[in-house]
Amino acid sequence: MLDKKLSGAGLRGQSAGETSLCTVGKSGSGLTYCGYDVSDLADNTSFEEVAYLLFNGELPTVDQLETYKAELSTLRDLPQLLKEVLQRIPRDAHPMDVMRTACSFLGNLEPENDFSEQNHAANRLLAAFPAIMCYWYKYSHEGVEIDCVTDEASIGGHFLHLLNGKTPSEQHRRVMDVSLILYAEHEFNASTFTARVCASTLSDMFSCITGAIGTLRGPLHGGANEAAMDMIQSFSSPKDAKVQMAGMLERKEKIMGFGHAIYRTSDPRNVIIKAWSEKLAQENGDTSLYDISVACEEFMWDSKKLFCNADFFHASAYHFMGIPTKLFTPIFVCSRLTGWAAHVMEQRSNNRIIRPSADYTGSEPRKVTPIETR
Amino acid sequence: MLDKKLSGAGLRGQSAGETSLCTVGKSGSGLTYCGYDVSDLADNTSFEEVAYLLFNGELPTVDQLETYKAELSTLRDLPQLLKEVLQRIPRDAHPMDVMRTACSFLGNLEPENDFSEQNHAANRLLAAFPAIMCYWYKYSHEGVEIDCVTDEASIGGHFLHLLNGKTPSEQHRRVMDVSLILYAEHEFNASTFTARVCASTLSDMFSCITGAIGTLRGPLHGGANEAAMDMIQSFSSPKDAKVQMAGMLERKEKIMGFGHAIYRTSDPRNVIIKAWSEKLAQENGDTSLYDISVACEEFMWDSKKLFCNADFFHASAYHFMGIPTKLFTPIFVCSRLTGWAAHVMEQRSNNRIIRPSADYTGSEPRKVTPIETR
Repeated sequence: MLDKKLSGAGLRGQSAGETSLCTVGKSGSGLTYCGYDVSDLADNTSFEEVAYLLFNGELPTVDQLETYKAELSTLRDLPQLLKEVLQRIPRDAHPMDVMRTACSFLGNLEPENDFSEQNHAANRLLAAFPAIMCYWYKYSHEGVEIDCVTDEASIGGHFLHLLNGKTPSEQHRRVMDVSLILYAEHEFNASTFTARVCASTLSDMFSCITGAIGTLRGPLHGGANEAAMDMIQSFSSPKDAKVQMAGMLERKEKIMGFGHAIYRTSDPRNVIIKAWSEKLAQENGDTSLYDISVACEEFMWDSKKLFCNADFFHASAYHFMGIPTKLFTPIFVCSRLTGWAAHVMEQRSNNRIIRPSADYTGSEPRKVTPIETR
Repeated sequence: MLDKKLSGAGLRGQSAGETSLCTVGKSGSGLTYCGYDVSDLADNTSFEEVAYLLFNGELPTVDQLETYKAELSTLRDLPQLLKEVLQRIPRDAHPMDVMRTACSFLGNLEPENDFSEQNHAANRLLAAFPAIMCYWYKYSHEGVEIDCVTDEASIGGHFLHLLNGKTPSEQHRRVMDVSLILYAEHEFNASTFTARVCASTLSDMFSCITGAIGTLRGPLHGGANEAAMDMIQSFSSPKDAKVQMAGMLERKEKIMGFGHAIYRTSDPRNVIIKAWSEKLAQENGDTSLYDISVACEEFMWDSKKLFCNADFFHASAYHFMGIPTKLFTPIFVCSRLTGWAAHVMEQRSNNRIIRPSADYTGSEPRKVTPIETR
């Protein structure tokens, strides 16, 4: 078999398959899901409509959406055995390890027996992830066993209600909804590609999503909004931010939340979440964290021509809603699950096992010598 | 960014990176680990030597091997919390879901804090996987809480001892050792590629291995030896095997354990495990299962020019050693873990995030219409 040598490491710019789900950066800055611009979706739909779109290819009607949300509502609670596993994960565990483990464990209790159950498996995880995250967090950090059911109509509202133990404001519900839409899908990024490689052996949905969570865990993929938060919180004022960042650049330290592997001039998700972060800052009364974020944005553009990506203003937006920094990447899981599962379904519908070749750079053929003579 | 259209789906024949660990089918039938032919390794080394080779690039000296085996011996027992999780996985769970979940859970208790701990993390999993598999199996199927420590010198012997609750014969120890060597490494197969994609985001070792297990779970990847066993056991005699298989071919049923995505004329691992299967059959006194397997091999070659791959004679060999069929693929995990972990280390040593592109086949740009008008 002839191996074609690829020009770029990491398969950059190489097509690894077909998708009808998403375009990224087609005109340098665009992002579309099933043909819809992400800004249009963020302005005019709910996260449940976007999940329905990704799983079914079309936005739902009023009746379809009502039925779908009712179904999701019945799938929110956690099995007792899963709660017992979450109780056994220590407080200092990495929250992404918790998500990965809970997803994997649920696959033992409620396996996807065949592909006719794929939508159910995806919906189950979509509905249960907020409770998985919040149950473990509240148990390990506050010793509280929360009730995993709320009467919230949306996944975003349900999450905020579980986390804060009270009914969220309409504005907070809407910001969570928008945030979940913005992170839902992004073509063949590394975690989605993991899900597709796993799906290509015809493995089950829980395996695919578990693998994707483990991939998103890496600091080169998820985690940028957490790193951005840590940085922003270390600055005392907009002026201090610019001074400190100049020092970071001089020391060649990595600054998270700026630039993108695909987008060249801007990230279309930034303007949307930035506007919400500003509204939340005003509601909050203390806008300093937002003002510092804007100073960071200005500084990076002026000095390096680097733009904010989706992650940067998410940091302050989440913070204003009372979300602990360590849960930022798990929220990414709750959202991107929709893209991952849609890609698994798409891979299955026209599958060939993903099995590339490699260029060999190792030792020439050699013989084993007896261990005594090595 | 220009996307290069690839000729084959599934990245077949496309190089996705470099490796010094393995060549597959370079001369149509060969398999080498770090330059050593797999037959040479199977004849003249132990599995621990091969693990050392894959992790360090060179076979160990007598002293290095002794130190390494002593280290592995100290890492065999399971934490109480992990045992409690295994107790909560039902008897009818898929054994690969058990392996995936236990690997993921262990990552919460004993995280790889930075890459300086990568060898320890890999060794921990290597030493603990036999107990993970056997503890769950004996607890869920027989209600027995086994002791996870034995005085066996090798991983293969340790596994057989845990499973059967008694000291294995020298021949059984050796066959397990050879089997673990044969399955240890196989270049950029789908599960290994998953491990590398996950590693490319700089995620942790437990995430990479968890993802690989989930990928191996798929019936197009692991599981062929289980399927072969089920088929062989359904035949009453060599003659019956040929009649039944003719019917299967006529009905275009998939027959597992034959042919290979890369090898063209033979699988170099088959002749090795086949010889051991014959020896075990003779030891066993009843050779019928071996004779049926040989009849299958003859039939598939005569009728379709398809050769046995590594999986086919593994089925009877494992069966003769008293291993339940549902543990065949988990044993594959115990072995291939070495290759997976070695690839994770190699990816980290010269990393670029694996992020391919995709060819878009979806909807043209469109506008969201109000839900009431859809």
